[in-house]
Amino acid sequence: MTEQNKLHLEQLLPAEIEKRSFEIIGEELKARQIELLPEQEAVIKRAIHTTADFDYAKNLQFSSGAVFAAIEALRQGCSIVTDTNMARAGINQAALAQLGGRVLCFMGDEDVARAAKEAGTTRATASMEKAAASGEDFIYAVGNAPTALIRLYELVKEGRIHPKLIIGVPVGFVNVEPSKEWILTLKDTPYIVARGRKGGSNVAAAICNALLYQATGRVL
Amino acid sequence: MTEQNKLHLEQLLPAEIEKRSFEIIGEELKARQIELLPEQEAVIKRAIHTTADFDYAKNLQFSSGAVFAAIEALRQGCSIVTDTNMARAGINQAALAQLGGRVLCFMGDEDVARAAKEAGTTRATASMEKAAASGEDFIYAVGNAPTALIRLYELVKEGRIHPKLIIGVPVGFVNVEPSKEWILTLKDTPYIVARGRKGGSNVAAAICNALLYQATGRVL
Repeated sequence: MTEQNKLHLEQLLPAEIEKRSFEIIGEELKARQIELLPEQEAVIKRAIHTTADFDYAKNLQFSSGAVFAAIEALRQGCSIVTDTNMARAGINQAALAQLGGRVLCFMGDEDVARAAKEAGTTRATASMEKAAASGEDFIYAVGNAPTALIRLYELVKEGRIHPKLIIGVPVGFVNVEPSKEWILTLKDTPYIVARGRKGGSNVAAAICNALLYQATGRVL
Repeated sequence: MTEQNKLHLEQLLPAEIEKRSFEIIGEELKARQIELLPEQEAVIKRAIHTTADFDYAKNLQFSSGAVFAAIEALRQGCSIVTDTNMARAGINQAALAQLGGRVLCFMGDEDVARAAKEAGTTRATASMEKAAASGEDFIYAVGNAPTALIRLYELVKEGRIHPKLIIGVPVGFVNVEPSKEWILTLKDTPYIVARGRKGGSNVAAAICNALLYQATGRVL
């Protein structure tokens, strides 16, 4: 690499790059005349940071007090259940462990595969059943499977789970949008939902991390 | 869930949902008057499938013959090196193993952390060094770190690596765009690059999977 080429790059440490990235996101939101609610700002900016997609400034829907409720739950050691190993890999497990929580993904479990086959349902559905059966109150982060989100909706309605937060951000073209709309109808369950088709395991992990960093007092 | 609500969902198996999703993507590309080259179609559609973001129809840049070269390499058992554990988790390891390849991510390795600290560089840079030092020709899938991409560029220029393919899709706001532009200047190295800010570990994994499914003869 020549010195001339080097000049094209900003010589910053990774932490500085993240800080500068959030500044750029803030500037561009301002240029688009988008004002974020203080409670929602860190989550929305981190979703944009992980996708470079400003649609998340508009499509993320928060139930009232959802972020505060989730931060409080994380501080009390709440664990996170996800529907993909990608989201599990993306969540900052060190920050979560510092607070006493764990990331759980049951999608690859043999008992889940067996239960899904027997019930003629998806592994995503069966993995939400498994989480519910534990009796523990979780934060649920769904980045892939609309069937997971639908089962969570049913489990809440049946009074079998009391989620500390539902992150409903599956991505896709079939059944994804209605599955999210159902979560938006829940009255006493905190949620963060990406309305429309967009989302993904990366967005689910980014939202978890934005909450974790606030819970642990990390800047950004 | 009432029967009425159930009617709002398409009752399809996961494989059918994927097929229907790709049909919708095809229809919407047509409606946008976007025609894809046959060689590039499966990769671009899977990137859109994983993000619901049609920008990937325009920002993905392919060197001539890149897809065919990668499929051939995968069929010969080529392994994939990634810069994040999220991408590693998202790549279909069963399909890759079927062909004799593995997914490697050195980001969490102790020797990489030590080498990065000693050299005053990033772990991403050091992990590309570690891959190069193995002497094996890989497919490199970079979904996060521009420094990984820059080091790959330098290693190619130094004649120390001969990648079967470079997937250059880091996402972000600082140094990401120039790092990709450098890869686009390579003459004899196959590449697939997402021009601009967008990309991510999920996109890197989706591109790998699109190549793997073609290499194993899976439909879609």
